[in-house]
Amino acid sequence: MKLIQLYASMKSELQSIEDEMARTVTSDLPILSETSLHLLKAGGKRIRPVVVLLSGKFGNYSLETLKKVAVPLELIHMATLVHDDVIDDADTRRGQLTVKSKWDNRIAMYTGDYIYAKALTVVTELDKPRIHQILSGSMVQMCIGEMEQIRDFFNVDQSIRNYLRRIRRKTALLIAISCRLGAMATDAPARVSNTLYTFGYNVGMAFQITDDLLDICGTEKAIGKPPGSDLRQGNISLPVLFALQDPAIRDTLLDEIKRIRAQEGQAVSSAAVKLVRSSQGIGMAEKLADRYIAKALKALETLPDIPAKRNLADIARFVAKRSY
Amino acid sequence: MKLIQLYASMKSELQSIEDEMARTVTSDLPILSETSLHLLKAGGKRIRPVVVLLSGKFGNYSLETLKKVAVPLELIHMATLVHDDVIDDADTRRGQLTVKSKWDNRIAMYTGDYIYAKALTVVTELDKPRIHQILSGSMVQMCIGEMEQIRDFFNVDQSIRNYLRRIRRKTALLIAISCRLGAMATDAPARVSNTLYTFGYNVGMAFQITDDLLDICGTEKAIGKPPGSDLRQGNISLPVLFALQDPAIRDTLLDEIKRIRAQEGQAVSSAAVKLVRSSQGIGMAEKLADRYIAKALKALETLPDIPAKRNLADIARFVAKRSY
Repeated sequence: MKLIQLYASMKSELQSIEDEMARTVTSDLPILSETSLHLLKAGGKRIRPVVVLLSGKFGNYSLETLKKVAVPLELIHMATLVHDDVIDDADTRRGQLTVKSKWDNRIAMYTGDYIYAKALTVVTELDKPRIHQILSGSMVQMCIGEMEQIRDFFNVDQSIRNYLRRIRRKTALLIAISCRLGAMATDAPARVSNTLYTFGYNVGMAFQITDDLLDICGTEKAIGKPPGSDLRQGNISLPVLFALQDPAIRDTLLDEIKRIRAQEGQAVSSAAVKLVRSSQGIGMAEKLADRYIAKALKALETLPDIPAKRNLADIARFVAKRSY
Repeated sequence: MKLIQLYASMKSELQSIEDEMARTVTSDLPILSETSLHLLKAGGKRIRPVVVLLSGKFGNYSLETLKKVAVPLELIHMATLVHDDVIDDADTRRGQLTVKSKWDNRIAMYTGDYIYAKALTVVTELDKPRIHQILSGSMVQMCIGEMEQIRDFFNVDQSIRNYLRRIRRKTALLIAISCRLGAMATDAPARVSNTLYTFGYNVGMAFQITDDLLDICGTEKAIGKPPGSDLRQGNISLPVLFALQDPAIRDTLLDEIKRIRAQEGQAVSSAAVKLVRSSQGIGMAEKLADRYIAKALKALETLPDIPAKRNLADIARFVAKRSY
């Protein structure tokens, strides 16, 4: 099934989650509703709610129950985006003005805090403390990942392993627990929820690698921000790390990165982007993403053969091929 | 009993909470441990842990259980302080460099996020989802309070009611639920935990009013920051609002506030501070704080007559009289 058909087939469930997200962030303080709804309206792939719902098919499917997992997971993701935009000093995301740019940093910080807290009020309605615990544990890991990213800004000597550990925390974990909690919330067997976790983890890794590839290879129109944004802010991603392994371009690329760093975010990164595009780094990163997808698909094999299993496989295959 | 004796009598329990807080925020990422421990070392009155422990005496007292409430409550308080310091652009707190000043705003933001998340991992170990829910609901209210404060910066026309609603969210609520959750965690009767909530709420209101009074009337040495700091950042507190009701000084005070605003945080606020000190605003604010304390003491009356009850009364009386 093509992804667009999958989304179409889940339309009413996804709309119901969308409505619940909007209801959740609407407060008695107009500015907080405005900033939060601004974020919601910017949209997104809603990959976390989608995998929550599909994972819930392996248990006693209940939209009402799954909402209480899907809504907080997507809101937590959104909250990290608002805080990211403060750190990255980003003016646009998904082609829309960011909260920090439309309002200011202070408002963006508290909007993030508010959305985190609201997310927790939803999940804590579920009478399953273990789910609350897994969620808060993941939030800790995500913060560590974000701090690692700051620590590693412009570090051209970091290892691939270092990069992978960082994106596991920053991205893969939340997708992995989306799968696990969807299964746990609907009382699927532990074996199933663990397998779904492995699936989600591998999809998440591939997802972030693809994201990092798109930042280099994508067009501004497709990715909603100028290409090379990561590099401009000092985020040395996988294709760049692989490109640096190529002796033919290493020194030129290092010089370009040094130049970008010296200009403190004001630099044009297009020369560096060109270098990486022309390097072996792209192919190597794509290959690694493919390996994660293969592992994700492999994990699925042991699961009961229900339509949701095929849908999850479709998502995994999409993640590796996506251009937005 | 004098407060210092009370703290001395609870020394080993408080130390155990202190140790648990340190253990909780220590992560595998050195910078996050450093920033978090820096905050912990700055100390504080630990009023939330103290009231948690005392409230727990009304149920089946268990330090192990109460820790899982006291530690997250104090950590959440600390996390709001780090984020506050980013907003207020504050360089010192309790006489120590703030995280945003010793490191930077980005690190302060993620340190706050990290401490919030860590706090949640502790409370979610308790098998009482209702407690998780109350805590996350309060975090939402606290964020709304913080945003209200930003919205109301330099608003000299705000009502007293507006001020009180803001400090209820910003401060009183967390102290109120510290009492409630201490009782709930130890399975005290609902009537007791509700009464303790009322007690904590009134103590919290008085606590914040006294804080706002100290910002005007305190010395830099006693309060760990220059007096008039609130005003300099635009926070129009109760003594100022009451002072503005005095026709004899209203216009001069308004001019001073306008001048402070124009200088965007660089202004000296001492002329305004002097005006407020000399006004009826001090006495009126003190009186209101006293009324809250009286209500807090009144609430205690219905509780069983155990030593913790007298200790809570001591705390309430201290709050109204404190000079630091």
